[in-house]
Amino acid sequence: MQQIPKEEIDRRILGLQTGMGEQGFDAALVVQNADLYYFCGTVPQGYLFVPESGEPVLFVRKNPERIREESPLGKIISLDKPRDLPGLLSGFGIAGFNRLGMELDVLPVNHFVRLREILRPRDTADISPLIQSLRSIKSEFEISAMKAAGLFSDRMIAASRAALREGMKEVELSAAVEAAARSEGHQGFVRMRAFNQEVYWGAVVSGPDAAEMNFIDFAEGGRGVCLALPSGAGLRRILRGEPVLYDYVAVHRGYFTDQSRTMSLGKLPAELDRAYRLSVEILKSIEAMLRPGVTVHELYSRAERIAEGGGLAGHLQGFGKNRAGFLGHGIGLELDEIPAVTPKGKTTLQAGMVLAIEPKFMFPGLGVVGVEDNYVIRPSGPEKLTGAPYDVEVDRI
Amino acid sequence: MQQIPKEEIDRRILGLQTGMGEQGFDAALVVQNADLYYFCGTVPQGYLFVPESGEPVLFVRKNPERIREESPLGKIISLDKPRDLPGLLSGFGIAGFNRLGMELDVLPVNHFVRLREILRPRDTADISPLIQSLRSIKSEFEISAMKAAGLFSDRMIAASRAALREGMKEVELSAAVEAAARSEGHQGFVRMRAFNQEVYWGAVVSGPDAAEMNFIDFAEGGRGVCLALPSGAGLRRILRGEPVLYDYVAVHRGYFTDQSRTMSLGKLPAELDRAYRLSVEILKSIEAMLRPGVTVHELYSRAERIAEGGGLAGHLQGFGKNRAGFLGHGIGLELDEIPAVTPKGKTTLQAGMVLAIEPKFMFPGLGVVGVEDNYVIRPSGPEKLTGAPYDVEVDRI
Repeated sequence: MQQIPKEEIDRRILGLQTGMGEQGFDAALVVQNADLYYFCGTVPQGYLFVPESGEPVLFVRKNPERIREESPLGKIISLDKPRDLPGLLSGFGIAGFNRLGMELDVLPVNHFVRLREILRPRDTADISPLIQSLRSIKSEFEISAMKAAGLFSDRMIAASRAALREGMKEVELSAAVEAAARSEGHQGFVRMRAFNQEVYWGAVVSGPDAAEMNFIDFAEGGRGVCLALPSGAGLRRILRGEPVLYDYVAVHRGYFTDQSRTMSLGKLPAELDRAYRLSVEILKSIEAMLRPGVTVHELYSRAERIAEGGGLAGHLQGFGKNRAGFLGHGIGLELDEIPAVTPKGKTTLQAGMVLAIEPKFMFPGLGVVGVEDNYVIRPSGPEKLTGAPYDVEVDRI
Repeated sequence: MQQIPKEEIDRRILGLQTGMGEQGFDAALVVQNADLYYFCGTVPQGYLFVPESGEPVLFVRKNPERIREESPLGKIISLDKPRDLPGLLSGFGIAGFNRLGMELDVLPVNHFVRLREILRPRDTADISPLIQSLRSIKSEFEISAMKAAGLFSDRMIAASRAALREGMKEVELSAAVEAAARSEGHQGFVRMRAFNQEVYWGAVVSGPDAAEMNFIDFAEGGRGVCLALPSGAGLRRILRGEPVLYDYVAVHRGYFTDQSRTMSLGKLPAELDRAYRLSVEILKSIEAMLRPGVTVHELYSRAERIAEGGGLAGHLQGFGKNRAGFLGHGIGLELDEIPAVTPKGKTTLQAGMVLAIEPKFMFPGLGVVGVEDNYVIRPSGPEKLTGAPYDVEVDRI
C-alpha cells in the first residue's frame, strides 16, 4: 500500500531536521500537498509537525485510517479540529515553539493567522526555502520515477504527432493527447507552487495564438477557450505549414517531466525553420554545459549569445517586453521548482538537480518554435530524461 | 474580443464599492484569478485597485496589450514591477490607504507582506467575504452562462454512459468523458478557492474505491492513480452490478455546473438501489424547499431526517467520522462558493444564488450512490440548471 520506502522518508525528514538545526528552527509545520507527499509518502488533509530532533507527528483530519496504511510515518494521529493541536502536541512532549517554520510562500494569510493563534509560537519564519532546497536534490529513487515520467512524456508526444490533422482545433488535439495519457494513468492535476499559476497540465498551441502571452509564466502563450482562462489550447483550427507548439507535463508517482516539441503539417516557413534549428542548437549547447559548479545565469547568457549570433535575441523566450524571463527551471513534484534559469540567477548546479531547459523563439502573428528537455545533473555531466525526436514535420498520406 | 459586457463589469465594481463604503474600506486590491476575471472580464497577471469611489485601475505585468483588448475596464496600465505601484497610483490621485481590503483567504503570507511593505496601508482587512457575497448573487448574464454549462454537463454525462464498459479502468472512463468535453471546448482547469483542494475537474469512481475518503472535500472518495494524488479516478476496473459515481464540472465562459449521477452495468445490489432511491427522494425534497428566506441548515436537517427515516443516517455524505460535512454548496466561477449547505449553516437563501445539492450515501467496501443537481434560487422557487436522467442502469447489448 505504501509507495515511498520508509528509508527514503526517514532520509528526507533527517535532511529537513539538519537544515532546521543550522537555521535555528525548533519545529516545522508542513501543510502544503506537495510538501506533505514528500515527507509523508501520501497526501492527507492534515498537519505534519517535524521537531528539530526526534520523530515527526502527523495529524490527520481526513482520513486517518487510510493514511496509516499509506504513509511510512510512525506517529499518525486523528484530528477533529486544529484547536485540538496544542493539547495533542503536549502529549508528545511538544509544548511551545521558539521559532516555528511554516510554508509562508504558499500558506494563505488567514490560515497562517489562525494557526499562529492556536500554536502561539514565539516566532515564525518561512521554512519553504529550506524545503525547496532539499527537494531540489533528487535521490536515485526520485530519479527512477522521473525516468519513467520521461518515457511517458515521449509516448505522449508520439500520440500527439499521430493525432495531428489539418483543420482540427487545438482543443481537439489536446483531447487526443490527454485521453491517451489519462488512459495510461496520468493523474491529470499538475502542481505548481506559485500563486495563481493555473497551468492545467500542458497545452498545444498553434500559429499566431501560440505567441499570445498570458498570465501563466510559460515561454509560450495561447488563447485558451475563453477569457475566463485565457491560456493554453483554444478553439483555433490548425493549418498546414504553421508551428504547433506542444508543451505537456507527464508524471509518474507524482514526479513530473516537462517536454516541448514543435510540429508542423508540412514544412515550416524558412524564417521559423531557421529559428527552430537555432533553438535546438541552443538546447544542445546548454546540455553540454550541464554539470555541477555551473551557475544558472551562465546558461542563460550562453542561450542569449547564440540567439544574438542568429539575429534572434529579440525573440528569445518571448518578444518585446513580454518575456518569460527564464530559460528553464527545476522540476520534480512541482513544475516550478528551484533553480529557475534566469539572466541573473545565482544558483550553482549540484549533482542530483533536475532541470527543464526550454529555448523557444516567439514571433508575434506567426507563432512559437522551440524545444524542451529535462536533465539530471550528474557529477560527470547531464543525464537526459526526455527523448522524443526533434523532427518537426508530420507526414500525412 | 470582450466577453463580459461593460455594463455588467460596471455593476460589479459598483456593488463592490457600495459594500466597501458600508464596511469602511477606502480601497480594495484584487489579485486572485477568479476575482480578477469577475471584475476585469479577463485574467491578467496583475493588480486591480478599486477605490471606494471612482474608476478602478488595473496594473498588468503580462500582457497589457492583450488585456486592453479583452477587458472593458478603462484604466489599464503596464507594470514592470510591484515596487512601481505607489508612484503609478499617485498619478491617479491614490496616495495612501487607510483600510486596504485584500483577499486574505487566498493570498500567501509572503505576497501579503511584500505588498504591505510596498503599499504601506495604515490598516488591512480581508475583502474576500465581501467579494464572495457579491459573487454569490448571480446576474441574468451569469445565469445564462450557467444554463449553457448545465446543458454541457448533460452532454458529458451522456458521453460517460455511452463509454462505460465492463472491465474498463476508472481512468479509461475518465479519459473518454474528458476527451469529449475538451473537444467541445471545456477549459479543463477548475477553480476551487480553498487551499490545497486539488480537484482536477471531476472524477468517475467505482465500487469500494469510491468510498475511500481523501484530502479533497467531496462527498465521495476515490483512490487516484497513486499516492501522490490519492483522489479521483484510479486504476480500478469497473465491474457489473456495482455503482459508478460520476461527478464532473462542466463550464461555459468560466461558469461552472457540477452534476453527479450514479450508473451501473446491470442492476445494483438491493441495498445500494434502495439508498440510491433515497438520495433522489432527498434531492427532490430539498428542491421543493429552495426559495428565498430558507436557511441552509434547514436543508441539511431535512436531508438528515429523510436519511434517518430510511435507516441510512450513518451513511449520508460519508460514514463514521469521515464525512464531507456538507449537503451542497454555492457554485459559479469557483466550485466552492458560498453558501455551504452545512448542519449549522446560517446563510439565508436569496434570489440569484446558485446551489449544487448533492445527497450521497457512502458504504465502506461497497461504494457510493447519489445524485447532484444545480439550481438557481428564483423568487418563486428553484430553476434547475442540470438535467441528465436519473437512470442508473446502463444497457449493453
